[in-house]
Order: sequence, then structure tokens, then C-alpha cells
Amino acid sequence: MSTTVEGPMTPQTVARIFAEKIPFNRELGFEFEFDDDGRPILHFQKKPEMVGNFVRGNLHGGVISSCLDVIGGFAAFCALLEKLDPAEGGADEVFGRMGTIDLRVDYLRAGYGRDFRATAYVLRVGRKVAVTRMELHNENSELIAVGTGAYIVG
Amino acid sequence: MSTTVEGPMTPQTVARIFAEKIPFNRELGFEFEFDDDGRPILHFQKKPEMVGNFVRGNLHGGVISSCLDVIGGFAAFCALLEKLDPAEGGADEVFGRMGTIDLRVDYLRAGYGRDFRATAYVLRVGRKVAVTRMELHNENSELIAVGTGAYIVG
Amino acid sequence: MSTTVEGPMTPQTVARIFAEKIPFNRELGFEFEFDDDGRPILHFQKKPEMVGNFVRGNLHGGVISSCLDVIGGFAAFCALLEKLDPAEGGADEVFGRMGTIDLRVDYLRAGYGRDFRATAYVLRVGRKVAVTRMELHNENSELIAVGTGAYIVG
Amino acid sequence: MSTTVEGPMTPQTVARIFAEKIPFNRELGFEFEFDDDGRPILHFQKKPEMVGNFVRGNLHGGVISSCLDVIGGFAAFCALLEKLDPAEGGADEVFGRMGTIDLRVDYLRAGYGRDFRATAYVLRVGRKVAVTRMELHNENSELIAVGTGAYIVG
Repeated sequence: MSTTVEGPMTPQTVARIFAEKIPFNRELGFEFEFDDDGRPILHFQKKPEMVGNFVRGNLHGGVISSCLDVIGGFAAFCALLEKLDPAEGGADEVFGRMGTIDLRVDYLRAGYGRDFRATAYVLRVGRKVAVTRMELHNENSELIAVGTGAYIVG
Repeated sequence: MSTTVEGPMTPQTVARIFAEKIPFNRELGFEFEFDDDGRPILHFQKKPEMVGNFVRGNLHGGVISSCLDVIGGFAAFCALLEKLDPAEGGADEVFGRMGTIDLRVDYLRAGYGRDFRATAYVLRVGRKVAVTRMELHNENSELIAVGTGAYIVG
Repeated sequence: MSTTVEGPMTPQTVARIFAEKIPFNRELGFEFEFDDDGRPILHFQKKPEMVGNFVRGNLHGGVISSCLDVIGGFAAFCALLEKLDPAEGGADEVFGRMGTIDLRVDYLRAGYGRDFRATAYVLRVGRKVAVTRMELHNENSELIAVGTGAYIVG
Repeated sequence: MSTTVEGPMTPQTVARIFAEKIPFNRELGFEFEFDDDGRPILHFQKKPEMVGNFVRGNLHGGVISSCLDVIGGFAAFCALLEKLDPAEGGADEVFGRMGTIDLRVDYLRAGYGRDFRATAYVLRVGRKVAVTRMELHNENSELIAVGTGAYIVG
């Protein structure tokens, strides 16, 4: 994806690209930040159109799978950035080649809440494939769903 | 979910509920029909906000996982309806209890295209759990993604 | 499964049943214990017939998926035991009804090593379904594989 | 894996390597053949030590996940062979690099039976990753389990 980023790509520029340049992320209001340990976090607020059950008002399963896929890919890409030599560049090219191979989502509880936070940790970043585990919590720290993703990175 | 359906629930009324009463389905423009064999189909057109990569214009992975989850649940519920005795009712209650346990999505090709069609077939409907396999094609009959879902039905 | 257990079923009796009464577990030499926090552990040593690649000598993927499935089910059953009223019995009956709905295994590294240890933690135990995450390490604490399982418990 | 195959590698030589040179496959008695359309089949008979429940006598889940993983990898490798130029060789090297990235298994019915047959079809063979779907039937053509696997091939 042509990212028109100037200078070396950093996690912060990647966060901006993910939030602003990917239409469906923007539609869902996905925002990206990093906790004190540098771990990426995806943050969003429930909007009425993101509901699955109009009586209960819980998140649609598709919103849940979307945010888990996105934070997993984001974490994988950040982990990859650390391994790349910034002097050599190439982050932009890697970004263009990245993609989700497969995703598993486990829906543990109905997605009640207002503010949601998805996190991911990277289990492995190889030369071709990265594997991540993801979690989604609401504002009461209830674990709504978990996921596992495999991403092509090479 | 209170469905305000009058008379026995049929696949056609379920299709209407899925398309009109589930906010995120409506947001994504998901429509439901049945092929000549009665197999359910989810139909949608790509809208600009459903894109994952603004240069390439392909579907966002979250749209793909959303439609596969939805058509799997829809197919599971239709299969369950066939097993329920309409005289006894209960479809409404079953509908309220249904939910996705877990979902696997395999992204096979970038989601290029304009018109998409997701189908599902039911591998098993037990008293507690249903399992379905799902497929997503574009208007050129290219297989974009497949999935497998487990749904709680009892 | 008729378990010929006398008195209430405890995690320790379940460990004995899993190790001694399930033929394939016995064949693979799976043993079960609990760490200081009461978390279940599956322990086994590599035998020559458990190898996948005769040159490299690493574990066969099927041994890896087997131990992850087993420790997940074991952990789910132990979590369920805690919720059952021992005075009412029923553990035996629940045991007979339990089964794996589905399993995901992520192979992170070649299964080199001699002594392996699989652990599991329970993400959710509902009235019908339990979900667990599993991990496999070798004697050097290298993470070989992870998994996620959904189990029918009701 | 050093395969000591002479001449170009064919599906038939691969079948022999899978059955004879992979210790755990040999332990489980896995045999490989091709149907009239050239689709690979894994064949095995239940042995007493492959049982999961000694009362019911059904297959252990680990045997099921093992055979699905193996036939998926076998099918992926055969599909890859077709794409390789035999004059250039390299099959041996590709074979050594192949591995399962991840596997999902859906257990549909208890594994009753005596003779089992696992088949796989390849959904995609790319330059880095192959994706396959697998099925396991018993001698009564009952569908016992299905699976999906992602394999590294490049």
C-alpha cells in the first residue's frame, strides 16, 4: 500500500496508517496506541451500527473478528519493524506484502459495553509467517473474545 | 432477540430478520436469499468504506470474517428450524439463545471484486452445537475465503 | 465412560483415569499432575515412534495436537468439577458426555527435545461449552506450539 | 529430511516416504494411495491402542487430528510437486522445508468404526503457503471429522 510516509517507518506512523488510511478501520473508529511496555492496543467505542442484537445492544460478532484480526496484524507488523534494519528501508515493501493467512476467533461472552480494547502479543515472527494471540476486553475488563492469527510477513 | 414475527418462523422470515433487524448486517448491506436447493446465500456489494487497502481496493478482512460468520449462523439456524416442530413453536426462543462459539477464517485471495456471495453448508446440527463450513466468492466465481464455524444452538 | 471410581471424583482421580484408562494416552505415555497453583500439567517423554522427521528427530505434529487436545479437555473437566456439587454426584455422567468440539493448533517451532510439558488454562466454563488455551514447552522452556479448544461439557 | 529417493520425486514416492519413513505415521499404520482422480487418500485401521474411550471403543481425538494433519500436508506437497519443474529438481529441498503452520479440527461424531479414510483437497497453493481442507470417514461413509490446515511450502 502506498503509504506516503516520509522517513523511516515507526510504530507510530504505522498506527496512523492503520487508523487513517484503511477505510474499514476508519469506518469502525479503530484507534491505535501503545501501552507503557510498547504493546499495541486497538481502541474503539461502540456505535449503534456496530450492534448485533438490537434488543441486547451487544457488539456484532463481525466487529469482534474485525478488531482481533486488525490488532493481530498490527502487532505482527510492529514486531517485524524491530527486526528490520531501518537503514536498509524495506518496511514499506513488507507492509504491502503482509496479509492474514487465517484467523480463529473464540466468542467467550456477549459483547456488552461501550469502550473496547483489543490487545495482541506476538508468539512468533519468522521470515515468512508471524503468529499472534489477541484479546478483547470491554471497559469493565471483561474478556469478551480471544483470537489467534497467522500472518504472512515475508 | 424479540423478533415480532407473527406466525411460525420460516427461513424467509429469518432472512428478513437477519437483513433488517441486525444493525451491523444492515450497515454492511447483507442480503439473504436461497438457491434452488434451498441453500442460503448472503449477498452484498462492496462499498467504499468496506475496503482494506485504499490503493488496491480489496475487501477488508473484517468484512470477510463478518459475512462468513453471519452466513454460517444463518445456515445453522435454518437447519435447526427444519428440526423443530412448528406446532410447538420455540423458534423464537432458540433464535435468542443462538451464538457463535468460534470461527476460523482462511483468507485465500485478496478480496477483489464488486459483488460478493457467501454460502454455507451445515456439517452437523446436534442438540447443542452446529458446525458449518462457509465460502466467499466474488462475481467472477473466484474463491476469496473459506471458514468454519461452531454455533451454540441448544 | 465407566470409570469405576469410588467416592467423589477429584482432580487426582481424573488424572489417574486420563493416564491409565484412555488407551491412546497410555500409548503416548501421557502423565498428569498439578502445579502449585493447582493448574494441570501433561508430561511426556519423546519415544522413537513419536518422531515426525527421522533425520531431525523432532516430535510429529500429531503428537503435538494430541497432547494439546488432551490437556485442554483435562483442564476443562477439572474446572467443571469445581462447579459441581460433590454431594449431588454427576461428575461421572458429565465425564461421559464431555468431548472436543474443535481444536486449533499453531505449530511455532520444530518439536525438538526430550521432555515435554503441556499446560492449559480455562478461558470460560459455561453450562454447555468450555474454552481453553493450551501451550507446549520442551525441557528448555521453548514454546513449541499453542492451541485453543472448545469442549462440550453440558 | 534426507529421503534417499533416486530420480525425480513422484506422488508415489512421496506416499512411500510418508508411510515408511515417518515414525509416527508408521506407528499409526497410515497408508497412502490415490483415487481415480489422483486425489490422495490416507487409510488406516483402528488398533486397540488408538482408542480414546475404552468402553465405547471410539478413536482418540489425537488420532483424528494426526491423520487430518498428515493428509493435508501430503495433499499440499503433491499439489506443489505438480508446479515444480522436475528437470530443475528441488522437490527434496521443498519437502525438507515443509511444515504445518496451523490446523483446525472439527470433531463431528464419535469415531466409531474399524477402517478409516482421510482425504484432502487443496484450496490454494501459493509460493509460501498452502491451504487444505480435510475429511475423515469411517467404513460406513460416516463423516467423523473435518479439518483445515495451513502449510508452509516455500
